Amino acid sequence: MARLSPSDADGSSFVAATRSGESPRVYLERCISRIEEIERDVQAFTAFSIQAARTAADASALRWEAGHPLSPIDGMPIGVKDIIETKDFPTEMGSPLFSGWRAGCDAASVSALREAGAIVVGKTVTTEFAATVPGSTRNPHDLSRTPGGSSSGSAAAVGSGMLAAALGTQVVGSIIRPASYCGCVGFKPTVGALNRGGSHDFFSQSCLGVLAQTPGDAWAVAREIAQRVGGDPGSAALSERTDPFVGGKPGSVAVLETGGWSRVSDEVKTLFHRWLSQLSEVGVRVMTRRELPELDALERALSDALELTRSINAWESRWPLKAYRALGDGLSDVLLDRLVIAEKMSVAQYTDAVARREAVRRLHSSLHGKCDALVTLSAPDCAPVGLASTGDPAFAVPASLLGAPAVSIPLLKAHGLPLGIQVIGFQACDSDMFGIARWLASRN
Amino acid sequence: MARLSPSDADGSSFVAATRSGESPRVYLERCISRIEEIERDVQAFTAFSIQAARTAADASALRWEAGHPLSPIDGMPIGVKDIIETKDFPTEMGSPLFSGWRAGCDAASVSALREAGAIVVGKTVTTEFAATVPGSTRNPHDLSRTPGGSSSGSAAAVGSGMLAAALGTQVVGSIIRPASYCGCVGFKPTVGALNRGGSHDFFSQSCLGVLAQTPGDAWAVAREIAQRVGGDPGSAALSERTDPFVGGKPGSVAVLETGGWSRVSDEVKTLFHRWLSQLSEVGVRVMTRRELPELDALERALSDALELTRSINAWESRWPLKAYRALGDGLSDVLLDRLVIAEKMSVAQYTDAVARREAVRRLHSSLHGKCDALVTLSAPDCAPVGLASTGDPAFAVPASLLGAPAVSIPLLKAHGLPLGIQVIGFQACDSDMFGIARWLASRN
Repeated sequence: MARLSPSDADGSSFVAATRSGESPRVYLERCISRIEEIERDVQAFTAFSIQAARTAADASALRWEAGHPLSPIDGMPIGVKDIIETKDFPTEMGSPLFSGWRAGCDAASVSALREAGAIVVGKTVTTEFAATVPGSTRNPHDLSRTPGGSSSGSAAAVGSGMLAAALGTQVVGSIIRPASYCGCVGFKPTVGALNRGGSHDFFSQSCLGVLAQTPGDAWAVAREIAQRVGGDPGSAALSERTDPFVGGKPGSVAVLETGGWSRVSDEVKTLFHRWLSQLSEVGVRVMTRRELPELDALERALSDALELTRSINAWESRWPLKAYRALGDGLSDVLLDRLVIAEKMSVAQYTDAVARREAVRRLHSSLHGKCDALVTLSAPDCAPVGLASTGDPAFAVPASLLGAPAVSIPLLKAHGLPLGIQVIGFQACDSDMFGIARWLASRN
Repeated sequence: MARLSPSDADGSSFVAATRSGESPRVYLERCISRIEEIERDVQAFTAFSIQAARTAADASALRWEAGHPLSPIDGMPIGVKDIIETKDFPTEMGSPLFSGWRAGCDAASVSALREAGAIVVGKTVTTEFAATVPGSTRNPHDLSRTPGGSSSGSAAAVGSGMLAAALGTQVVGSIIRPASYCGCVGFKPTVGALNRGGSHDFFSQSCLGVLAQTPGDAWAVAREIAQRVGGDPGSAALSERTDPFVGGKPGSVAVLETGGWSRVSDEVKTLFHRWLSQLSEVGVRVMTRRELPELDALERALSDALELTRSINAWESRWPLKAYRALGDGLSDVLLDRLVIAEKMSVAQYTDAVARREAVRRLHSSLHGKCDALVTLSAPDCAPVGLASTGDPAFAVPASLLGAPAVSIPLLKAHGLPLGIQVIGFQACDSDMFGIARWLASRN
């Protein structure tokens, strides 16, 4: 397995490399070497074009040489999760029903990234319609293990150094979990903060987000999207009210101990608590439900977070699943079953579920000011063995339900494999949360 | 022009016809006769299939004969505005950039309507990307006049009896205005109340709505969509808390006299005031800003409604316009100019505009309980002569900005041509508003 481990475990920042004078073509060639070395085994891509990427990198290099890059990510090699539309590659959504289908146009995020000079190297594997049935991708750190999902290819390609960054989406656990398993940074912003236009991910909790080798690259990608195409229509775009690269040391963090902890081994709990102790030692106040009644109330309210999320998603799946089913055979049994559940739901049940979600979000907001961020694991353990499941999403669910920004940072190793620490912030305060996460990462 | 006037000026209800035992095939044949008679001149369709419609109508007729129709609209001949995706026809969006493009899949609304047994006869002409540059459609009541837009083909086809109903969308005036000009019912629900999935109309004010020959058919179509695929994810689906076909006589209505009234002729004002007098005579209290301070405040707040709407739309146009521009030449100068405006806007300006819209919405809510609905014209006059512009949207803007439900009913004639009365309700109270509108229509 050793040959699949990334050469640079802490990630290789594109933004830092080009700022220090490296040509984007040189950076790209490192990515291409990794692709040539491991893509055949990892299968992170549904389609890619090395030649087009080289041409684009050379054009970018000329802009950098002239001192006029289009943005800090001009020339950055990126991937696009294959539920997000691109004009140059098919968008197949992990389903035979869309084999070879072309959107004809770029999604909002892709349009923005191209305008910023980023190079779309290829499309990355998604589970079927970003749900649970896995695609072909394997974990680059151990081919016998899942990369996580649904942003499987994005996480695997970034975590193995084939790309600097990639777009992902999350409605349950689809960014935080694969980032944790593949050892990269995974950033899921506040719901609505990055324009989802052209992404076939239609839930009210769905978020466009970024997987990247370093926190700085993740933020840079998100920032270029927000500046150019904003958030979802009617929503506030990604907040930059603070500079996430200045300061960031939190006064206090609250440890979120919700669903999933019962499945965490003593060994992993020890790793996590050791990390918390190190925080305390440098003067960060680490709080739990015992000191913070609002946190206790939030944890209780989150006890059925996965069930509530699945209820909301089920109703919201009526379409597109009805339309997909009408295309003929090709929908998995898992999704056909979800549609059966969805068709048994009433409008009243859905309305009630959304109201319950709002109530949990209000509880979360009541913690704002009592602590600077929530911290927890990104997954119960390292990636499990087996490719039939993308793993346990329990740790990623709370931030998805809360619509809150979250980031997974590859700070732990369990059984020699990556495991992320998750930092969860408050709605529309993405830059504050990111600053804390970046500070935590920089201490490693 | 006489030969183009609809044979049934008050509309021909599909729901009533089938309920009284008429075969959907017989209803369809009347539509086909109108298509054969006038479509060559009116040009309401971008594509249609008579043969497929006949086959579907025969299948529907068998279900009706067996006493098991799929819904009250089983067999209803409908059209779909060509920014809304269908699996069987291209979706060309009124732009050469999407000539022949196929979505491969049905939009949420189309999926629901097919499941309810409705027959998608064809796609109807839209202005370029549902904005302002007209397509080929002419007003069926006078070919020298605009049908209005952007739901031009939907309104013209329905207003001339070529279809029972059609899907439209509105972000500024795109349902209310063409319904008024073409003499059909136009229903724009509360923002988010009908699932917009698969409609290429990406603004925060965008609504999916229905054009129909009668109020009953309009509500039936909207209801079948809401029941099957709900509203936009996270939004409440169309309200049915009251039966819009029972009662409906309002205790009071408030006359909204905002932008556009300065361009209304004395003749049209007289028509409108005569209609108001008739309401008073049957015991409906008709109020104006002089008696209702909240209405006065709302009218003042709406004085720059069009400008505010355009600001919000401009920012929200960054994508998809950036992506369309990247496809090559083919975007109109009008849209290229809008993109220039959009690119000059800051996030802060957009955020401010959305906050101002929220404030106006709160003022509107404060009228709830003080009157049962707002009434006004749907347009300053009948359709103007000329095909280069789709007409003045001023009367449609308030409900769009407010996110409120609105319906245009063809109750007036100006210069012998249709002119709608517009009823505007309160957010999420669509059925109450519809009941009032239906009662007003039934009095005619």
